[in-house]
Amino acid sequence: MSRFINQTYAKLEAYTPGEQPSNMKYIKLNTNESPFPPSQGVIEAIHKDAVSQLNLYPDPTCQKLKEKLAQLYSVGADQVFVSNGSDDILNFSFMAFCNSADHPVKFPAISYGFYRVYAELYGVRYTAVPLRDDFSLDIEDYTGNDSTVVIANPNAPTGLALSKKEIERIVSANPDHVVLIDEAYVDFGGESCLDLIDRYDNLLVVRTYSKSRSMAGARLGFAFGNAELIRDLEKIKFSTNPYNINRLTLLAGEAAIDDDAYYMQNCSVIAQTREDVQRELRQLGFVCTDSKANFIFAKHPNLDGEALYQTLKERGILIRHFQSEPIKEYNRITVGTKEQMDCLLREISLILNKKDKKEHKNEDC
Amino acid sequence: MSRFINQTYAKLEAYTPGEQPSNMKYIKLNTNESPFPPSQGVIEAIHKDAVSQLNLYPDPTCQKLKEKLAQLYSVGADQVFVSNGSDDILNFSFMAFCNSADHPVKFPAISYGFYRVYAELYGVRYTAVPLRDDFSLDIEDYTGNDSTVVIANPNAPTGLALSKKEIERIVSANPDHVVLIDEAYVDFGGESCLDLIDRYDNLLVVRTYSKSRSMAGARLGFAFGNAELIRDLEKIKFSTNPYNINRLTLLAGEAAIDDDAYYMQNCSVIAQTREDVQRELRQLGFVCTDSKANFIFAKHPNLDGEALYQTLKERGILIRHFQSEPIKEYNRITVGTKEQMDCLLREISLILNKKDKKEHKNEDC
Repeated sequence: MSRFINQTYAKLEAYTPGEQPSNMKYIKLNTNESPFPPSQGVIEAIHKDAVSQLNLYPDPTCQKLKEKLAQLYSVGADQVFVSNGSDDILNFSFMAFCNSADHPVKFPAISYGFYRVYAELYGVRYTAVPLRDDFSLDIEDYTGNDSTVVIANPNAPTGLALSKKEIERIVSANPDHVVLIDEAYVDFGGESCLDLIDRYDNLLVVRTYSKSRSMAGARLGFAFGNAELIRDLEKIKFSTNPYNINRLTLLAGEAAIDDDAYYMQNCSVIAQTREDVQRELRQLGFVCTDSKANFIFAKHPNLDGEALYQTLKERGILIRHFQSEPIKEYNRITVGTKEQMDCLLREISLILNKKDKKEHKNEDC
Repeated sequence: MSRFINQTYAKLEAYTPGEQPSNMKYIKLNTNESPFPPSQGVIEAIHKDAVSQLNLYPDPTCQKLKEKLAQLYSVGADQVFVSNGSDDILNFSFMAFCNSADHPVKFPAISYGFYRVYAELYGVRYTAVPLRDDFSLDIEDYTGNDSTVVIANPNAPTGLALSKKEIERIVSANPDHVVLIDEAYVDFGGESCLDLIDRYDNLLVVRTYSKSRSMAGARLGFAFGNAELIRDLEKIKFSTNPYNINRLTLLAGEAAIDDDAYYMQNCSVIAQTREDVQRELRQLGFVCTDSKANFIFAKHPNLDGEALYQTLKERGILIRHFQSEPIKEYNRITVGTKEQMDCLLREISLILNKKDKKEHKNEDC
């Protein structure tokens, strides 16, 4: 830290992204990417002519992309915001809709780690609401109309989802504060609350191309809400970095909408794989949450969470382990291809067998 | 504006980017883009295989790109920061190194319009220092050691440049504050102060791929400074949007460094064209500043600045006009290809001739 830094940020702890290893080929099940490549339309959209025009700025209003998203999701183009990944949108939303005086913020204590980082970055008073023992949210914790509310639905890393009816209860109970529903994982089995935006001017629904649309590497997020909320976000974007989506990502984003069927089919394959793998893990003694996302959240009574993560890493499989209580016994495992998951299950079986033998041997001694 | 917005931003005026027209083919000389396409290496770097891997997150540390930049500019990789365009870096710098209590900020009153927007966005007390009548900066205005200093060198939209010696005077006179030198346009004839970063821990030099490297559409900026300053910027980046540079832009940015000779040759062509066009404009009666950038800043005693902008737009040529005093008689004209500039000169001659005839006719009446 330099001697010049704004003291507001001196004690800030930045977000820690999942490992992005460069030194070894891993089966990468640690950052919830899609195992499927982008659609053929996306690959064709980024042709040589498009690259040759990189000398020109992109359209900062992203109008064409907004219109395509509006059409696909049956909303108005003025109800759509797009930015450089959903993190960017979350960041702008904390700036725009949270402040300690009128709009402190409330989010689940176990959820996407960035919510806490944004609250601390902007010095916003926040409440990290404890979950029930089974990791479910008690929606009545969020109905006080005293805070901006941020909820990931499905939640991460638990994968548990609230119904649209439960979300509506929270939105309607907070008429004076924005309720941000982070639907990064909704395409894998959650229930979207998107069609509530016409009825509630305080609802902001955030989505991403990083998971269901196989474009984590392209950086594109979008959000839906009342046109006034969207204008607020545009104001923040045009006051920080108006051109934050590059030309190629705009083209890819537009082409992906045209190929929606391909992506939704991939999502359904991933959801099926998740169910199959969870069943097998349970047979091996694991406890898994009822995940509706593209990851599994699991622990084993005889395996230390961190040890499993480390052992799998040594065997070439990366999963995500969090050090914090009360989830340190768990691991979050991205659902990859069927082949990747078979490999995972095989390695886990070997680890469990070895452990059993070792324990048996120890008993012998 | 929604009823939920943080009142800090209620009166904020966002930056107004130059027009990005979609409805007509213009000769586009309004946003200081390069008229040359990216190098062959960049075009080849964005191949189908790279696009097929967009399902994976990019490397948030951008290590390979940093190492290439470090090698090209003979600095350490820990002295390099990269982000989503130089606007992104300016934004982070205002967050990190400015605050009303200890580090208010000072910048020229006529300069890149975004400096004022950032100061207002973060509520930082600022001084917009008036320029001399000839638009030159009095460097003694910036030697008070009482503020963070932000200077574009060459300055925009005037194109006037300070020498490295003058920059060093400012940097050395402000040991307790960061001096940010925005070198967006330095490759067209300015003198970089980059090699001062080892001697001054308060110097941050900001660069961009948008002008000299023909990649405005790819969104990539970089900065050089003391390793501690760079770590501060990394902290802000990892607390807002760690993955803000997409995979394809990373590849393009790396390839562009390998093709540096191509870009520097383009810069020298642009500088020569600028000199040629300025000479011709002066022959037509224009007053031009001594621009060291990829644009010309010019006014004509008999032509209203806004009228010239409008008339050229009607004739299919976009230039940039600013409404504010004392520069509203001027226009900023990006230096395009020789052919584009010939067309510009031809249209301007026609406009001047028509005006002369009209005035003559009026005198006759």
